[in-house]
Amino acid sequence: MKGERDWGREAADRLARLSKISAPGPGVTRLPFTPRHRAALDVLSDWMREAGLDVHLDAAGTLVGRLPGPPGSRTLLIGSHQDSVREGGAFDGIMGVVLPILAIERLRADGETPPFTVEILAFADEEGVRFPTALMGPRALAGTFDPAVLDMTGDTGESLRKAMCDFGLDPDAVAALQRDPGSIIGYLETHIEQGPVLEAEGEAVGVVTAICGIERHQVTFSGETGHAGTLPMDMRRDALVAAAALISEVDHRARAEPGLLGTVGTLSIAPGAVNAVPREARLTVELRAPEDAVREQAGAVLSDFARAIADERGLGLEMTRSYQQPAAPCDAALTETLAQAVRAVGGRGLALPSGATHDASAMADLCPIAMLFVRCEAGVSHRPEEHATAADMGVAIEAICAFLRAL
Amino acid sequence: MKGERDWGREAADRLARLSKISAPGPGVTRLPFTPRHRAALDVLSDWMREAGLDVHLDAAGTLVGRLPGPPGSRTLLIGSHQDSVREGGAFDGIMGVVLPILAIERLRADGETPPFTVEILAFADEEGVRFPTALMGPRALAGTFDPAVLDMTGDTGESLRKAMCDFGLDPDAVAALQRDPGSIIGYLETHIEQGPVLEAEGEAVGVVTAICGIERHQVTFSGETGHAGTLPMDMRRDALVAAAALISEVDHRARAEPGLLGTVGTLSIAPGAVNAVPREARLTVELRAPEDAVREQAGAVLSDFARAIADERGLGLEMTRSYQQPAAPCDAALTETLAQAVRAVGGRGLALPSGATHDASAMADLCPIAMLFVRCEAGVSHRPEEHATAADMGVAIEAICAFLRAL
Repeated sequence: MKGERDWGREAADRLARLSKISAPGPGVTRLPFTPRHRAALDVLSDWMREAGLDVHLDAAGTLVGRLPGPPGSRTLLIGSHQDSVREGGAFDGIMGVVLPILAIERLRADGETPPFTVEILAFADEEGVRFPTALMGPRALAGTFDPAVLDMTGDTGESLRKAMCDFGLDPDAVAALQRDPGSIIGYLETHIEQGPVLEAEGEAVGVVTAICGIERHQVTFSGETGHAGTLPMDMRRDALVAAAALISEVDHRARAEPGLLGTVGTLSIAPGAVNAVPREARLTVELRAPEDAVREQAGAVLSDFARAIADERGLGLEMTRSYQQPAAPCDAALTETLAQAVRAVGGRGLALPSGATHDASAMADLCPIAMLFVRCEAGVSHRPEEHATAADMGVAIEAICAFLRAL
Repeated sequence: MKGERDWGREAADRLARLSKISAPGPGVTRLPFTPRHRAALDVLSDWMREAGLDVHLDAAGTLVGRLPGPPGSRTLLIGSHQDSVREGGAFDGIMGVVLPILAIERLRADGETPPFTVEILAFADEEGVRFPTALMGPRALAGTFDPAVLDMTGDTGESLRKAMCDFGLDPDAVAALQRDPGSIIGYLETHIEQGPVLEAEGEAVGVVTAICGIERHQVTFSGETGHAGTLPMDMRRDALVAAAALISEVDHRARAEPGLLGTVGTLSIAPGAVNAVPREARLTVELRAPEDAVREQAGAVLSDFARAIADERGLGLEMTRSYQQPAAPCDAALTETLAQAVRAVGGRGLALPSGATHDASAMADLCPIAMLFVRCEAGVSHRPEEHATAADMGVAIEAICAFLRAL
């Protein structure tokens, strides 16, 4: 009986097998356009074919497994990325390729076929570890690919173009991959949560409301150093004391504003001696929120706060927004369908934002997106101990099947 | 006419000459028991003899210039140290030897002789740069010298004992230098302020109330790291946010408590990435105050505060007091005499604490101490640009003369 197959267990076994396709060292290191990338695609291609999909590799290095629907039907895209960070885990990315392959196989084993075309995508490079760019695969589909990145050089000094050619790809054909938005139903991505919310809530899977926008500020407070024993308090221009006020305010604002995340992750001071008043404090402020207006408002308020603190304490201030990426809201209708699918397989359909970037961020420029998060142990990702259970992946496969049936 | 001599100018010229007795490099580098130390003592000896003093070098390397008073008279000690930090300035320490020599010369030029014995002392090592100890000279006089330090090794790997022997000293005779407190009137030290108060107040010289006590705490907050995009605010245990609260509280307390100085001079965090919640924050808290009770109370309150912040945020805390040195109050009577002397030469006799340690800190174990501070440019010390004007040094010489007359 087909019902006897443990789909979650099969997912775990397949991911364990893929995890061995790695550069030497702890965990998984599988970078794009390497022999490991090729080996992973060979295995994925076999599984896609077993699930009844037609397989090809596109010019951007995206493996595409296609289940054609009725003539003239539109296409649902499902996927994630094959690559890992250096010494990363066995789940981030590639789980979002393995689970939909098994979902299609499960549907077809039950004699069901979606009334639309399905394409399962394994993107080459989401992590951006090897080259100073990423998301080429989804950007190519969305028509937002910038050919200038082909000339960027990577960790070994060779260009992206060269690496792609050596992999057997035609970089000049990438631009032609752009899809017609009218032909696409949407894009579904399944990914480990990379956070602790589902674990804390006791849910195997959750539904993403939006991929958070991000902004980063480089902040430098400049004061004056002096001997900690001889510079009176009321004559001090202590850069660290100003930085401390800003750090507290970032935390306070982010806790007060639903959805906002605020982090000071780096801080260095000079001169840095036990008996010297700090002359300079350099720090970064990172803000993320599912709503751009919330994030931008927080950025403005915190900039004003930093300016006020600097003025009050007679310090110089440089605060520049060095990075900004808008939020990618998930499609309301697709996401509601996904939530219903989760509820149909026994989950609550818990809604949560994604603080991290995904292939879906770039796919949002092409079509409606939806994301299914799978609980991961202790919120850990990008490390060898990254883990999702077979049982939770089984729930995710059932939810993908229910989604495909309901769509 | 003797009144035509510009004593401040002579002090400046003498200090300029001594500043050339330095290891190569910017500013002054004159470490104890080196050929530079010897060369400086040769010059100082000549000037002491010109001022009518009997000169000898004691077993601790302290140059002593003695003007004997009437038989059986007690002794006033006056001095400071000959050594500098590496790439330091021309005034810190050695100015407190040069000015009293000129003051004695000036008094005697006017035909005056103090009715007590005066000894001018040039201590070998106050900065503690070459060996991991300092203040041997005054400790020997006070009877607090610990012979175990003789076996400490310095920057070149040789022991203090070896360096002293090579300098022609007998380390085993240091213990015998201890003076009888009953024979000593007190100790007067003249030093640049190393701070900005006299400059801000428009005063050439000031009178020290006490040498501040010091305590230092090593603080480590331990939380948990996580992805800045996926770890919700209410699940964070951010070590830097806790550190920021403590930094703000140190500043707040010190500003609120008269005389208290509080400084966080070092801070490092881990892992230290723009998108990672800080797991660990290590910092130092330094407190100084002229009253030990004030400092100790502040240390206890700040320790309680750090504990409360750690508990509130679910963090681990290690906070240990790694260093403590009690305050050395200046003698009320000697200091009042010094303040009157300052007022007699046109100053206000401004009273201020010394946040830095001096030879006087160790001399306080032997006898009453008093300190005269001389204004220095922008509060700078321990750097080549350290500076006190000839005019201000002239005022200091006049004040020392007035003090000697009044005593």
